[in-house]
Amino acid sequence: MNQPVAAVPIVRIRDGRRVDAIDQAAGEVPLEIRVGKGPFAVVMRTPGADRALVAGFLLGERIIRGSGDLALIEHCTDPAVDAGDVANIITVRLDEGAEGRAAALLAGRREVMATAACGVCGRLTLDSMRDGLAPLGAGPQVSAALVQQLPARLREGQSLFEATGGLHAAGIFDRAGGRLALAEDVGRHNAVDKAVGSLLLRDALPASDAVLCVSGRTSYEIVQKAWCAGIPMVVSVSAPSSLAVSLADEAGMTLAGFVRDGGLNIYTHPDRIT
Amino acid sequence: MNQPVAAVPIVRIRDGRRVDAIDQAAGEVPLEIRVGKGPFAVVMRTPGADRALVAGFLLGERIIRGSGDLALIEHCTDPAVDAGDVANIITVRLDEGAEGRAAALLAGRREVMATAACGVCGRLTLDSMRDGLAPLGAGPQVSAALVQQLPARLREGQSLFEATGGLHAAGIFDRAGGRLALAEDVGRHNAVDKAVGSLLLRDALPASDAVLCVSGRTSYEIVQKAWCAGIPMVVSVSAPSSLAVSLADEAGMTLAGFVRDGGLNIYTHPDRIT
Repeated sequence: MNQPVAAVPIVRIRDGRRVDAIDQAAGEVPLEIRVGKGPFAVVMRTPGADRALVAGFLLGERIIRGSGDLALIEHCTDPAVDAGDVANIITVRLDEGAEGRAAALLAGRREVMATAACGVCGRLTLDSMRDGLAPLGAGPQVSAALVQQLPARLREGQSLFEATGGLHAAGIFDRAGGRLALAEDVGRHNAVDKAVGSLLLRDALPASDAVLCVSGRTSYEIVQKAWCAGIPMVVSVSAPSSLAVSLADEAGMTLAGFVRDGGLNIYTHPDRIT
Repeated sequence: MNQPVAAVPIVRIRDGRRVDAIDQAAGEVPLEIRVGKGPFAVVMRTPGADRALVAGFLLGERIIRGSGDLALIEHCTDPAVDAGDVANIITVRLDEGAEGRAAALLAGRREVMATAACGVCGRLTLDSMRDGLAPLGAGPQVSAALVQQLPARLREGQSLFEATGGLHAAGIFDRAGGRLALAEDVGRHNAVDKAVGSLLLRDALPASDAVLCVSGRTSYEIVQKAWCAGIPMVVSVSAPSSLAVSLADEAGMTLAGFVRDGGLNIYTHPDRIT
């Protein structure tokens, strides 16, 4: 549960042939940052260089100004914590000045703003993100040939990308490949929120017969958002994270990646792709 | 200040020739979400489809279950708010059940966790991210030819990418192109935090003679993190956002993008690239 790379079984489709195989997915595991006595933040990260990650994070947060502000930064040594969890907790002790800045930042946040821009921040637990979500129904069956057309159809709708070369996109398609919604944003999660939200505002959720196609990597949050919208299939030109694969499996969702160059990989519930 | 695309002046280098030009950058502007009477979240987004974005966001947050939970969702109509700001504020009124879930979520966050995983969430204001940061010094001068080699040098160090095809990378290089730090992560910001943090833990900050090279898009937060580390030059194979360009300009930082195919674009402070 704290490896940078995780082996995942897949169905690989190349030139119309289906083969069972093992693929490597990038690890994505929550890291809890404890500052002083209390929790400070949870970051979804690829395990490895955890101390450096936290040091850089605290620098960007303006809590520390340099290594002199760090009295201690190490993986958790609390004997009350399960051995399996200590690798995913970093404990930080700050010098006095930085301690004051951390306390002020936390106090200010509590009073003025409780916020989340990336789908995970601010969550009490990852479990709370799937409480009450039922497994997805049977949903559509779609041919591999149609799935392979979706990235091009997504790209056709990206008017802002054409102008800037720098935007993510999310499209929701029906089982015949017709476009139900399409959105662009600098943020991957935002693009999904916009596409899902436009269906919601049209009273078209749950989209239980639809496919979500995203332009970038598939992270845990994208699978979670699709699940909330009742979408049973997510496809991407790029790679999913390990946590995206396990959440899709739990949701009963078909997750496909690397949809390009005449092929694709199916990570979970391959039966919907024929 | 709320356009999906912003025109930015650049210096374009192609085959050794420098030309002044105008480029289009993806808009990146904070959107404040108000639920009931109070602030609920701030999201960095590309302007456009704001109501859909907020509807999808609230669905993913598990605050609403469908459009029936939304009594009202519209751009701010508060006469006390400046006309220039209303386009960047969405006001939401929920039905009673969803109101209760929103209140419980906020209360839970206040008690248990005040957190930020993506560099902006939880901030009181964007201004607080640059308070006390001094403009960067002169820093290195680097040839365009060397800048063009950095993405390949970054890629060479990406051992996890080779395995998974799905990781972002950040590398910090000296003025001769030597590698000072390199990190990979499923999250773009995490990769930067890891690279910067590893220098911090080695007492090597500020890195005032270094160049940060990132594998993906350059967002506001990446420029902010480089500024905190004292790094005067950021380069990427991909596009910067409009807010990244304006922050780099303010910081006195050289920002280059689209470093590929024998060319590159310089968005700010072009004098450091010769």
